[in-house]
Amino acid sequence: MPQQPAVVLLSGGVDSTTTLAVAKARGFAPHALTVSYGQRHAVELEAARRVAAALGAAAHKVVRLDLRAFGGSALTADIAVPKDRAPDEIGHGIPVTYVPARNTIFLSLSLAWAEVLGAWDIFVGVNALDYSGYPDCRPDYIAAFERLANLGTKAGVSGMRTFAVHTPLIRMTKREILRTGLGLGVDYALTLSCYDPDDAGVACGTCDACLLRLKGFAEVGIADPAPYRSGTVAE
Amino acid sequence: MPQQPAVVLLSGGVDSTTTLAVAKARGFAPHALTVSYGQRHAVELEAARRVAAALGAAAHKVVRLDLRAFGGSALTADIAVPKDRAPDEIGHGIPVTYVPARNTIFLSLSLAWAEVLGAWDIFVGVNALDYSGYPDCRPDYIAAFERLANLGTKAGVSGMRTFAVHTPLIRMTKREILRTGLGLGVDYALTLSCYDPDDAGVACGTCDACLLRLKGFAEVGIADPAPYRSGTVAE
Repeated sequence: MPQQPAVVLLSGGVDSTTTLAVAKARGFAPHALTVSYGQRHAVELEAARRVAAALGAAAHKVVRLDLRAFGGSALTADIAVPKDRAPDEIGHGIPVTYVPARNTIFLSLSLAWAEVLGAWDIFVGVNALDYSGYPDCRPDYIAAFERLANLGTKAGVSGMRTFAVHTPLIRMTKREILRTGLGLGVDYALTLSCYDPDDAGVACGTCDACLLRLKGFAEVGIADPAPYRSGTVAE
Repeated sequence: MPQQPAVVLLSGGVDSTTTLAVAKARGFAPHALTVSYGQRHAVELEAARRVAAALGAAAHKVVRLDLRAFGGSALTADIAVPKDRAPDEIGHGIPVTYVPARNTIFLSLSLAWAEVLGAWDIFVGVNALDYSGYPDCRPDYIAAFERLANLGTKAGVSGMRTFAVHTPLIRMTKREILRTGLGLGVDYALTLSCYDPDDAGVACGTCDACLLRLKGFAEVGIADPAPYRSGTVAE
């Protein structure tokens, strides 16, 4: 029986890479979608390409959409990325790295591709636990998007099936995410999580994304295989 | 008191132009958003620019997002635009000019800009009556998007206010839309509705969008000021 296609949002970080591995393990033919949105950390597009190739995505599209047109985020405008925040600061309040309506835009693009592919399944690596405080990572939000998808598409109103947005990581800690991916053979050396990497893709080690990632690897008890700028991370 | 900003989706056709005029008449400072999505009728971007300038939009952004990456529509792929369909064919079934998830993508982009602007109001010229059969033009769909917007944004979860998606045309016939716009002083010579215009922006006169538009002008009892290719429209 041919595999069902599924669209997987892939940034090239730990969470979306793990999500791609989970979609594949569940028997879908993963179609990876990466959005080049003018993000400060555009080098993550290279990580997405490496991951899609290594994990055997059935297809990988990189769609350009320059969200710098709107700005309003440390990832898309000239706003500094916070560094060296304490663990109890991360996850309290919505940080300046929040990109207005980003997941809504990304899920909409996934839906467009899913409809064209004849796919009913979308995977997104949102996480409501170690989630850095983003509102568009919560279960209620995901359910609202599913409802919208089924009302607002030709496929959805056909009554044949309904769209499902799968969020396999939504209640996992970063440690659980890493264990899941490692169990599926993911090579995290391919991934990039940092909000503020250098041009070669070397991570800063001190932004929220790096701190959450490093904490996760420490809890799993293995060294993070990603490169960090010297002196930022304890050896 | 300064005017409240509102984001208005503007394609440069009759409906979105009328919607912009309504938003202005309701006292908002309209911020027009046009998406250059690789549409077959890219000359409509020029119409959008003319309209935004003539109606005094507070700002106008044209965001590029190439939906040809996904295809799946006569407007974004190599699929013929239907011509000369009978009035009872138009509005029955979803036509091949349906662009997968287009309104979901466009509303998401509006939401991003609204959030950055501090706006709580989005205007979109969808129409559930003369609507050519698109699922993402119905009231249920719009209500589902409002819910999503309020769950998935920093502004929405702040509890300060809620986002509203205004659809002033949703229950109007094309005749009522034109009367509304004419009453507000809209010059429809600036607009372009055609799905298949030539490079100079001259309308075909025979696609669904042209037929609905011409029917509306006929019902209002005035000549459509837009240029049509010779021989396609009865003088």
